[in-house]
Amino acid sequence: MTRRHLLGTLAASAFAQPGAARINAARLRDHLERLSVFGRPAGGTFADGVSRVAYSDADIAGRAYALSLMEAAGLKPRIDPAGNIFGRRAGTDDRLAPVLFGSHIDSVPNGGNFDGDVGSLSAIEVIQTLNESRITTRRPLEVVIWSNEEGYAFNNGIAGSRAAAGRLDPGELDAVWNGIKKSEALRRIGGAPEHIAEARLQPGAFACYLELHIEQGGNLDREGVPIGVVEGIVGIDRYDVEVRGFANHAGTTPMPDRRDALVAASHLTIAVNDIVRREPGRQVGTVGQLDVSPNAPNIVPGLVRMVIELRDLSAAKIAALGEQIRARAREIAAETKTEITLRPAAHHDPALATPEVQKAIEAVCLRMGIRTMRLPSGAGHDAQAMALLGLMGMIFVPSVAGISHSPRELTRWEDCARGADVLLQTVLDRAA
Amino acid sequence: MTRRHLLGTLAASAFAQPGAARINAARLRDHLERLSVFGRPAGGTFADGVSRVAYSDADIAGRAYALSLMEAAGLKPRIDPAGNIFGRRAGTDDRLAPVLFGSHIDSVPNGGNFDGDVGSLSAIEVIQTLNESRITTRRPLEVVIWSNEEGYAFNNGIAGSRAAAGRLDPGELDAVWNGIKKSEALRRIGGAPEHIAEARLQPGAFACYLELHIEQGGNLDREGVPIGVVEGIVGIDRYDVEVRGFANHAGTTPMPDRRDALVAASHLTIAVNDIVRREPGRQVGTVGQLDVSPNAPNIVPGLVRMVIELRDLSAAKIAALGEQIRARAREIAAETKTEITLRPAAHHDPALATPEVQKAIEAVCLRMGIRTMRLPSGAGHDAQAMALLGLMGMIFVPSVAGISHSPRELTRWEDCARGADVLLQTVLDRAA
Repeated sequence: MTRRHLLGTLAASAFAQPGAARINAARLRDHLERLSVFGRPAGGTFADGVSRVAYSDADIAGRAYALSLMEAAGLKPRIDPAGNIFGRRAGTDDRLAPVLFGSHIDSVPNGGNFDGDVGSLSAIEVIQTLNESRITTRRPLEVVIWSNEEGYAFNNGIAGSRAAAGRLDPGELDAVWNGIKKSEALRRIGGAPEHIAEARLQPGAFACYLELHIEQGGNLDREGVPIGVVEGIVGIDRYDVEVRGFANHAGTTPMPDRRDALVAASHLTIAVNDIVRREPGRQVGTVGQLDVSPNAPNIVPGLVRMVIELRDLSAAKIAALGEQIRARAREIAAETKTEITLRPAAHHDPALATPEVQKAIEAVCLRMGIRTMRLPSGAGHDAQAMALLGLMGMIFVPSVAGISHSPRELTRWEDCARGADVLLQTVLDRAA
Repeated sequence: MTRRHLLGTLAASAFAQPGAARINAARLRDHLERLSVFGRPAGGTFADGVSRVAYSDADIAGRAYALSLMEAAGLKPRIDPAGNIFGRRAGTDDRLAPVLFGSHIDSVPNGGNFDGDVGSLSAIEVIQTLNESRITTRRPLEVVIWSNEEGYAFNNGIAGSRAAAGRLDPGELDAVWNGIKKSEALRRIGGAPEHIAEARLQPGAFACYLELHIEQGGNLDREGVPIGVVEGIVGIDRYDVEVRGFANHAGTTPMPDRRDALVAASHLTIAVNDIVRREPGRQVGTVGQLDVSPNAPNIVPGLVRMVIELRDLSAAKIAALGEQIRARAREIAAETKTEITLRPAAHHDPALATPEVQKAIEAVCLRMGIRTMRLPSGAGHDAQAMALLGLMGMIFVPSVAGISHSPRELTRWEDCARGADVLLQTVLDRAA
């Protein structure tokens, strides 16, 4: 008998009361470390992060490992036409809608070993713990591992959960990336593109959706609070901006005659930053992408293309910020003798967590003596697709220094375990 | 007898007095139009500009055409080891140093049909006019067409004239561009890399160097002045700048926690513009190249690389501007929690035109009833290499709207002809 099995047996015998049930922290860590091998850089260690892009060989191998863990936990996993993995544990009243919980295991290139993985493997750990503790629930439980959350593949994220919410984009399965069609990519992970409509969950398909995830921001770490109760997932407005000046010789064009697109773009970049910061609240605004043309040291820039991204829990606030930026862009264009156009390029509605579920998570933490804080999620999650279908709640654990989408992404093992325990207790609460 | 030959014959008979000699404007235009074919975009017209990059097939064909014009003007052209084309017309006292004059015929990709070409073909036209007018000069005359002025090939300009001034960079002939070595490229245009040292002109090799060129800026066009007397060619300081912030998730990183390299770079871009503009004078400063990393809409920029370029006739002023920018960069780094490094990447000394030659050009124009203005050259020219060896003067003609290095580059035919006439008279003045 291995040490791990021994721990499992001890855990099973130690707890009888559901409220006292705790997951096996050593096993959860072991599973996260084993999963990290799939997509690890050659010759690297856990600390070197992971590149497990959806539909890649690493993703396929990682999914196979997750399937084996689900089977070991007594779940009979099935893959839906969108490549999502589901595993059901019966309830005492199997006619009731299940509590659905899980996350994703795909990553960005050069990502970390916690984003998605913690929520996915904790969901399986919850089932294993309930099995070992011989705890049954009234409602059935359903673990889910969503496909292609990150959207690095095909530049279109939370793909599996959107399919489940019936929110695929028109023609999405015909998209081509790296030379393969999305329908082909789906087939590689066991999906069935010709039956994609059947991936759609029916109204009432779940009683509540829960997702444990790392914060990916620095709020919990900075405040020293171990559990975040997510208020919602922010909405996003993205603008494609074109700044048109006139390219000319940098040596022969006097300063007063210039129509420098980069000077104008610099004013606009600073305006985005200033306008977003001067309002109270947690909204963010970013110019993350900017391309200069012709981009030579001795030519006054004639054209700049840039992307402005605004995020907040309030769609009205995002829209108002966009209007302020648009007004300032008009002034900058006049001051710099350039033309500036802002074209709305993407709009995602905010997805609010169900207040009742937020309160349930807080009640669980209060009982367990764990401090919490409420906060928005600035990043997108599969939970936002599920919020379209029913009750939704998210539990955050701290990201050290707020670093994410990086090999330096880190959530301490005790924080992972604490999050999994909160997930376990919230599942029990919702499944009662 | 063609119309062109007829015009030439008429011109020859019409003028006897050197001071009354005028070039043949129709022939100069015809030659410029014929040269424009070499490197013209397929299916295009004169207005579509030219791509006659040094050492290319188009350059070789253009040079062959120029050689044929020189032969037709009674010059016996020779190619020096650096690929420069020289053609000598005897003086009445051939022991004296010649007056040297010319320009270049290579272009940037998608350039115009005036930059370099006007000065080169006008120099040949001056010889043809003197022949037809049966005017002899005391000093010999020497026409030159320099190789690779633009420096698009091998990213290293005024290459032929630098070789003549003994200012090749160490290892310059070993440079590789587009898969070929510079020594091989030189051989393609008739150069002899193994004898490159012999391209160096000896002290006293010329009495005066003169170059007619388009302004490439908008000063003459805006002021309605047909001839510019160049005060000198500006010096250039170039800085490679690195702005290091910290890349992080644009959705989850609160505004106060950001170390946004692009916000810092934007402040620095505006600072360069403001610092250069607030001083009186004609100095210019440009951020023409800027690259963002990782350059994704949803990631706070972690790194920006950019190039700052400063130009002025005064090296001291350029250095002082650089110091002001460096001081402001330190403040911006502190304000934005980034690190900013400025590394000097290139330094070119200003090259002043000889005051005596500037006055001679002005005297010629006064006699001809042509308005002039003095101005610096913001662009580099072969004349700056010649200024290292002896007396130097440059004549500018207007660029419509200051556009250059573009198919839209335009100097009116009458301005080309007027410039060639001023060149002719200045050559006669210097060769007397």
